[in-house]
Amino acid sequence: MEHTYRLVISCPDRVGIVAKVSNFLTTYNGWITEASHHSDNQAGWFFMRHEIRANTIPFGLDQFRAAFEPIAREFDMQWHVADSAAPKKVVLMCSRESHCLADLLHRWHSGELNAEVAAVISNHDDLRSMVEWHGIPYHHVPVSRDTREEAFAEIGDLFAHYEADLVVLARYMQILPQSLCEEYSGRIMNIHHSFLPSFAGARPYHQAYSRGVKLIGATCHYVTEDLDEGPIIEQDVMRISHSDTIDDMVRLGKDVEKYVLARGLRAHIEDRVIIHENKTVVFD
Amino acid sequence: MEHTYRLVISCPDRVGIVAKVSNFLTTYNGWITEASHHSDNQAGWFFMRHEIRANTIPFGLDQFRAAFEPIAREFDMQWHVADSAAPKKVVLMCSRESHCLADLLHRWHSGELNAEVAAVISNHDDLRSMVEWHGIPYHHVPVSRDTREEAFAEIGDLFAHYEADLVVLARYMQILPQSLCEEYSGRIMNIHHSFLPSFAGARPYHQAYSRGVKLIGATCHYVTEDLDEGPIIEQDVMRISHSDTIDDMVRLGKDVEKYVLARGLRAHIEDRVIIHENKTVVFD
Amino acid sequence: MEHTYRLVISCPDRVGIVAKVSNFLTTYNGWITEASHHSDNQAGWFFMRHEIRANTIPFGLDQFRAAFEPIAREFDMQWHVADSAAPKKVVLMCSRESHCLADLLHRWHSGELNAEVAAVISNHDDLRSMVEWHGIPYHHVPVSRDTREEAFAEIGDLFAHYEADLVVLARYMQILPQSLCEEYSGRIMNIHHSFLPSFAGARPYHQAYSRGVKLIGATCHYVTEDLDEGPIIEQDVMRISHSDTIDDMVRLGKDVEKYVLARGLRAHIEDRVIIHENKTVVFD
Amino acid sequence: MEHTYRLVISCPDRVGIVAKVSNFLTTYNGWITEASHHSDNQAGWFFMRHEIRANTIPFGLDQFRAAFEPIAREFDMQWHVADSAAPKKVVLMCSRESHCLADLLHRWHSGELNAEVAAVISNHDDLRSMVEWHGIPYHHVPVSRDTREEAFAEIGDLFAHYEADLVVLARYMQILPQSLCEEYSGRIMNIHHSFLPSFAGARPYHQAYSRGVKLIGATCHYVTEDLDEGPIIEQDVMRISHSDTIDDMVRLGKDVEKYVLARGLRAHIEDRVIIHENKTVVFD
Repeated sequence: MEHTYRLVISCPDRVGIVAKVSNFLTTYNGWITEASHHSDNQAGWFFMRHEIRANTIPFGLDQFRAAFEPIAREFDMQWHVADSAAPKKVVLMCSRESHCLADLLHRWHSGELNAEVAAVISNHDDLRSMVEWHGIPYHHVPVSRDTREEAFAEIGDLFAHYEADLVVLARYMQILPQSLCEEYSGRIMNIHHSFLPSFAGARPYHQAYSRGVKLIGATCHYVTEDLDEGPIIEQDVMRISHSDTIDDMVRLGKDVEKYVLARGLRAHIEDRVIIHENKTVVFD
Repeated sequence: MEHTYRLVISCPDRVGIVAKVSNFLTTYNGWITEASHHSDNQAGWFFMRHEIRANTIPFGLDQFRAAFEPIAREFDMQWHVADSAAPKKVVLMCSRESHCLADLLHRWHSGELNAEVAAVISNHDDLRSMVEWHGIPYHHVPVSRDTREEAFAEIGDLFAHYEADLVVLARYMQILPQSLCEEYSGRIMNIHHSFLPSFAGARPYHQAYSRGVKLIGATCHYVTEDLDEGPIIEQDVMRISHSDTIDDMVRLGKDVEKYVLARGLRAHIEDRVIIHENKTVVFD
Repeated sequence: MEHTYRLVISCPDRVGIVAKVSNFLTTYNGWITEASHHSDNQAGWFFMRHEIRANTIPFGLDQFRAAFEPIAREFDMQWHVADSAAPKKVVLMCSRESHCLADLLHRWHSGELNAEVAAVISNHDDLRSMVEWHGIPYHHVPVSRDTREEAFAEIGDLFAHYEADLVVLARYMQILPQSLCEEYSGRIMNIHHSFLPSFAGARPYHQAYSRGVKLIGATCHYVTEDLDEGPIIEQDVMRISHSDTIDDMVRLGKDVEKYVLARGLRAHIEDRVIIHENKTVVFD
Repeated sequence: MEHTYRLVISCPDRVGIVAKVSNFLTTYNGWITEASHHSDNQAGWFFMRHEIRANTIPFGLDQFRAAFEPIAREFDMQWHVADSAAPKKVVLMCSRESHCLADLLHRWHSGELNAEVAAVISNHDDLRSMVEWHGIPYHHVPVSRDTREEAFAEIGDLFAHYEADLVVLARYMQILPQSLCEEYSGRIMNIHHSFLPSFAGARPYHQAYSRGVKLIGATCHYVTEDLDEGPIIEQDVMRISHSDTIDDMVRLGKDVEKYVLARGLRAHIEDRVIIHENKTVVFD
């Protein structure tokens, strides 16, 4: 993989932003390998992502940041620049269902994901052996009504210990406390096994079966305090028919869940997602 | 198109139904060109559709019905037999949006739909010329708050006059009164411009835009008293992105709406849909 | 629809192109509503499209061209700037099959396509009434082995008479002569009823049936001298099964053909397609 | 999973087949949980699959076969009856690419596939640890030009040793000798990384990139002597764009390959596929 910097910007829209930023990059001879723009006319907001060959820029990330800061201030930008050579640290969380976890582990193991899987945390011990085969630490933190507070304190400590840039709930069946949602705002990703906003809450396949829909889906979204209401990153669906039972739907849905979560994760770790209010811009 | 009879059955599930029905058909030398079965184990209900070459059966539809009646009684069947040579009479309803109407009219005009489009009814006069070019009567029945009752009385009279087997709401923007919903239960079909149950009610694309979903959809369903809650016949979706405005979504969604409605309509007029409680069995 | 200019560029890739172009636009205060870039690293080629609010630029198209010309020369650009207020003149060609033609006419008639449908040319007279209802001239130019040369001379004259910016073969079943292909290179679009390169040539659905594929497709491409070998603009597929006959495939395929052609056409008339060698860049 | 018998039949089409078979089942009180029929009118051939609750039949599989044999003879049936409680023995073959193998192993490990994965054979040793973690024997059989004959003799012995009902080439990059193709006719399944018949042969993603297609695909098919020409079981595609490099296509394609192979495999092990000439009937 090529060594690149990713410059990601969102700011109020006005004339001259692109010129300013591209002049900046040209001044330092930066070779742009990918450029994406989006003007949200309704919100009056502008979004931009550049991927630049690191070796064409004559300085490192700190100097880049210092040099760019005046432009950022001038245009009221929310921005960051990320280094492809510093893969994000990801903590995965799961319960008993293995399909999403196994899928992500294999993608990571085969070099498809530019991320460091720092640890797996689960409220069950079932998947330990699979995780440890990959050489990844496994933390079993049971959660019961009585131990909930201590459990999530421990989990928060683990996030801190592993310096998690991102937490991925890979079919983790517990609700995170508000404090963690806030602390890791925009950095916790969940896969919900329905095409949200349909069938939020528990047992979405049962809900889908009762309603008699002809497609089932999955939604990858950032976790917020409002359960299943956070900004959507990726969604997809699969065709079913009257002959599919709930068990069939659960089985078929796994393929959509895996795929949607993997795409959402990939977009995030490549700094392709910008959150604005309760929606996302995702630069393919 | 081959001349066939379509025998459509639903009944409580038990051993021997298929044998009984296929013996019946074999006794009369009926050549089955298509056979579909479904056992809903959860509901304990059985569904079956046969398509039989009409010229292999030694008698007409009335005798067929009389001969089959004892079997139907024995197994508590809800059933009917339809004749492909007697296309269903369909009344289309529309408002100002032309895409679904134009699509259905073209399919009918080019011989793709085995149905008789008996008339078009609209609360606006905009689409008269397009309809009349096809040689189909156009009835402009304005609906206002004050005239609503008379308007729907007139519409009910038109249904009766045209002996409508099926009414298709091709983006008709008025809510039918309960009396018509009941009288034509299972015979009024609507296209809703969202992937139900998401975004029921008004302005679904606006709702979809606000929620930031990554797919938009359409749903073809039977009309019941509970708006947007009737049995779903067909659904599909289309991928969108952050760069699509509401106008883009409205435009893109038209293709899904047209396609989903056309598929739902085709299934109904070929007697492929069986309603059971609030769901459908659709034999492809 | 907003009045915009579309600046479309392709050139050898190097540092500074984006800066140069965006500076140019900023200098004249041009408000960019859409910007798309693509670097083809393998070919060493760069592609760019900007959509700019016309009323933010202090001069018209001729002055724009003159002002931009030095930059274009500096970077060896192939480029053009188009005016959304000057819709392209499109000539449609068809034979007997009406589905693609009817679909395009309806899209045009309902205001979905920003183009002027100047005329329809057909080697049959069947679809005259449908076309004339839309207020569009219909030219019946029969083509037989003996009259082929005169026929295409007449057709060439019609293209010239209508000042065709684009010719769309909407299931036109004749092969255009090499001279027309060359004269209108990059400006004649065809819909082929298979997922090319599978099933090029005649009767693609028959070929697909024989091979037993599980999906059928359609391909919108520019016409070149090499039949079915031109640059692909858009493709899509539809699932079929063993139960679909050739007639079913022909019927089902129509929906894919219509949709793929309409998307390809839309991309072209909005100046979103750039041809490079035998491939296309399509900026969504 | 319920214990069922699967009765799978193909024969020349005529009146009375369904009646005969369903009478047979009714006579022995067999409870049919799934029934599928297909008449290929062009080929004059009939296909049928029944799934029957094993515990409703008063005898075992041998007696079933004996009792059914006269019917089979009367109608010139090719047929078999399979027992869901006797999962098929499957040998997987792979080379260095792990995605299909890992996907199948996880499906098997999590109980999604009703099959016994008897062994994995590879011409490389790379994936041994992954396979052995699952408790499955791994055989490294290198294949070079010089050792080809002995290698495939050894492989044939392994097939025999494990009594393989089915061999799955999960991105196995060697061509099987004609003798094995014949001996295991209809029992060797391959995943080809293109939408066949497009891009048969080597390096299909490179071919797809050169042609500039807008979708990439994968095809699961039975292996015959004619490479990439065998009966197709399942296919699917994924949208790409001009911005996807060959590496992107290779990566994106993996998801389609995995999914298509898994669906094809599932269909086979549930006795849902019937081969007729060079095509398949697949009863969903």
